[in-house]
Amino acid sequence: MVNAFNPATAEGLAHETRQMIDKRMRLLGPAYRLFYQTPVQVVKGSGVLLWDAEGNEYLDAYNNVVSIGHAHPRVAAAVHEQMQTLCTHTRYLQPGILKYAEQLLATFGGAVGVAGHVMFTCTGSEANDLALRIALHHTGKRGIIVTEEAYHGNSHLTAGFSPSLGISSPLGTWVRQVPAPDSYRFSPEELGRKMAADVQVQIDDLQRHGDGLAAFIVDSMFSSDGVYGHPTSLLAPVAEVVRKAGGLFIADEVQSGFGRTGEKLWGFQRHGIDPDIVTMGKPMGNGFPVAAIAVRSEVVAGFGSSMRYFNTFGGNNVAIAAAQATLDVIQEEDLVRKSGRIGRLLREGIAQLASQFEIIGDVRGSGLYTGVELVSDRALKTPNAAAATAVVNGLRQRRVLISATGNHANILKIRPPLVFGEQHVDRFLTELEYVFRRLPK
Amino acid sequence: MVNAFNPATAEGLAHETRQMIDKRMRLLGPAYRLFYQTPVQVVKGSGVLLWDAEGNEYLDAYNNVVSIGHAHPRVAAAVHEQMQTLCTHTRYLQPGILKYAEQLLATFGGAVGVAGHVMFTCTGSEANDLALRIALHHTGKRGIIVTEEAYHGNSHLTAGFSPSLGISSPLGTWVRQVPAPDSYRFSPEELGRKMAADVQVQIDDLQRHGDGLAAFIVDSMFSSDGVYGHPTSLLAPVAEVVRKAGGLFIADEVQSGFGRTGEKLWGFQRHGIDPDIVTMGKPMGNGFPVAAIAVRSEVVAGFGSSMRYFNTFGGNNVAIAAAQATLDVIQEEDLVRKSGRIGRLLREGIAQLASQFEIIGDVRGSGLYTGVELVSDRALKTPNAAAATAVVNGLRQRRVLISATGNHANILKIRPPLVFGEQHVDRFLTELEYVFRRLPK
Repeated sequence: MVNAFNPATAEGLAHETRQMIDKRMRLLGPAYRLFYQTPVQVVKGSGVLLWDAEGNEYLDAYNNVVSIGHAHPRVAAAVHEQMQTLCTHTRYLQPGILKYAEQLLATFGGAVGVAGHVMFTCTGSEANDLALRIALHHTGKRGIIVTEEAYHGNSHLTAGFSPSLGISSPLGTWVRQVPAPDSYRFSPEELGRKMAADVQVQIDDLQRHGDGLAAFIVDSMFSSDGVYGHPTSLLAPVAEVVRKAGGLFIADEVQSGFGRTGEKLWGFQRHGIDPDIVTMGKPMGNGFPVAAIAVRSEVVAGFGSSMRYFNTFGGNNVAIAAAQATLDVIQEEDLVRKSGRIGRLLREGIAQLASQFEIIGDVRGSGLYTGVELVSDRALKTPNAAAATAVVNGLRQRRVLISATGNHANILKIRPPLVFGEQHVDRFLTELEYVFRRLPK
Repeated sequence: MVNAFNPATAEGLAHETRQMIDKRMRLLGPAYRLFYQTPVQVVKGSGVLLWDAEGNEYLDAYNNVVSIGHAHPRVAAAVHEQMQTLCTHTRYLQPGILKYAEQLLATFGGAVGVAGHVMFTCTGSEANDLALRIALHHTGKRGIIVTEEAYHGNSHLTAGFSPSLGISSPLGTWVRQVPAPDSYRFSPEELGRKMAADVQVQIDDLQRHGDGLAAFIVDSMFSSDGVYGHPTSLLAPVAEVVRKAGGLFIADEVQSGFGRTGEKLWGFQRHGIDPDIVTMGKPMGNGFPVAAIAVRSEVVAGFGSSMRYFNTFGGNNVAIAAAQATLDVIQEEDLVRKSGRIGRLLREGIAQLASQFEIIGDVRGSGLYTGVELVSDRALKTPNAAAATAVVNGLRQRRVLISATGNHANILKIRPPLVFGEQHVDRFLTELEYVFRRLPK
């Protein structure tokens, strides 16, 4: 994992921090990772700010789950009211889940919006797992195509098509990868031709192996591939070859949904496509565990009638209350448009720094999802992972939280709550410049 | 699904209920099921009581998730405090998750208790999915053995070893089933010999097919198989043959854990076994989505170091606050012992009704988990599914909520919150007798 704390460097940490890390290893085991060379103990949050145990304030430029801000009073109040009233499952009739599902479906447009269904889970992994179960059932095929460094979940099935989990985590034999659209190294025209052609090659290979194509699943911001927000002309041709092969197009909106791209509520809408299934999670309840899929009715008809689906906590009253409050705030406060403007300001500011710092190779993104590619040679565009690590940890020492991504671990991932303001952009740029200025030459 | 609402019988329902069911079908699609011939719209809960939209009160003798009672003020307060403070993930240091993990681990005993780790997920399905991913990785085998009507989850992997989902839901080719311990039709001595022998036959078959044994996973109350709380001498011999074949023993405590059996906090402890992995969910946060596995450290060492595991919402601050409050209440209020006593009272009461009603074939269970097998012929022990459906729906009309289970759908499943009191037992028995008395002959 990019930006994981390395226990080998624990020596220099404060005694209390080391003790807590040891206790954590003893109780939670070796599968858990911490962020940063000096892990942060956060104890409080509000808006885009976090505080640690010593009362130090941090600027949160990373957490996309709390998209309307940490500890949002409206979500807290909605959850509290519902927790005091009733928290139960979907095998009783309840109007709240129907109101929310209707409001949500109205945002999609296309086939899903016109005659789709919403099915609730608790996590994005569960949503992607369910989407693929439905795709496998509907198509009778089992091939799945993803991007090279995709991440779609932690269940057995979804981990099997999440190459970003690393080479120790086996992919399914029926999984194929295509390169992410590297807009820094290829021209938009080339990428436009390339991706659909790459997908077609993998479809042919799946058919050759008798698996056929069940689905192509994609995060339209290519988050773990390196954050590629443009061009937006890519996915329509891909959808075409996928459909032609009888496969489903699944838009994984766990990262790019609910306004993250600052242009549309859903990432796929920027690409002008009409997916068969949309999956969503992370920011859906502003931190409350709630996720979902929206699916064209024909696609789920067979699965639904012969297989049923029940998720004990999925769509419970409190989860719906949290999701309702979050969606209301996003819509009422026009956060898509606002965060879109702030995201542009942020990227303009970073692009200006690029005139001073040769290390900045590319600044890209959409809305409040920004990737900054660091390179050791601008002409050759050589990935500079060491610099990315230094910047991420340097910012952490300046109490600004971001992370890094990409298969070369050299891309800064900047992804604050949607309520990031101009003053936060200023603070962020000041600290980023401070850190860049002190990077080892 | 036993006890599902059948849309074909919707004719007789109130106009408003029919409208809500239609809207639900349109928005949530065909995979969702409702309970009862006349579905219930619940709007409020407190303790073991629920209220519908018209203000009618129901006795909840079914919901095991809200194990310390609906809308428990202590859980609501803990969740509210934490929601107003911080809700974030496990890649920052936090003391709360460590305190809870330590308190939880101390309850297991055995290898997991002495040197085990806790890993947090959001749902029991995720917990079982993760447990099996670890088992597959640790053993390098892929065979999984379950009971005949087991239910272990809704993910692709766990649905593949959940035969209770029905014949349309395919089992993995590496999954084998063994009969549940039918204590009504076999003597304890026979069952003791039988189950370990049955498991051995399936181990041999898995080895013959080149899959080998990764794990035997079992709910020690055999919830979806028909609720078999006794004999408790069964699982130790099974664990022995499983270990001998190199497989892991996984205790699925999603149903039987957190005091449900009224004797021990964990169902496996009644069988005197020492599992390799324990999975838990449903009542863990009294309705808040939180679940976990506890695993022997050697078993997760390889998976943890090479594969990492991250669950965005799993173990977040609010989930931990809910789980902490729930466990504290169970322990401080001695709910295991108390609910054990109430469960015995309940079964004694039902057993007394058996002298009047020939239809009652068997009354069994442990703690507040009771199965009542209905038969059309006591001598032949012929399952009577129609009677079970009639009793479940009859009780619903009397505003008492239970359900039914078993592969013949003839077993009443009575599983109230752990705070069920003597007065609730009285009310339950009164209504049950009322319904039995009016059953069609």
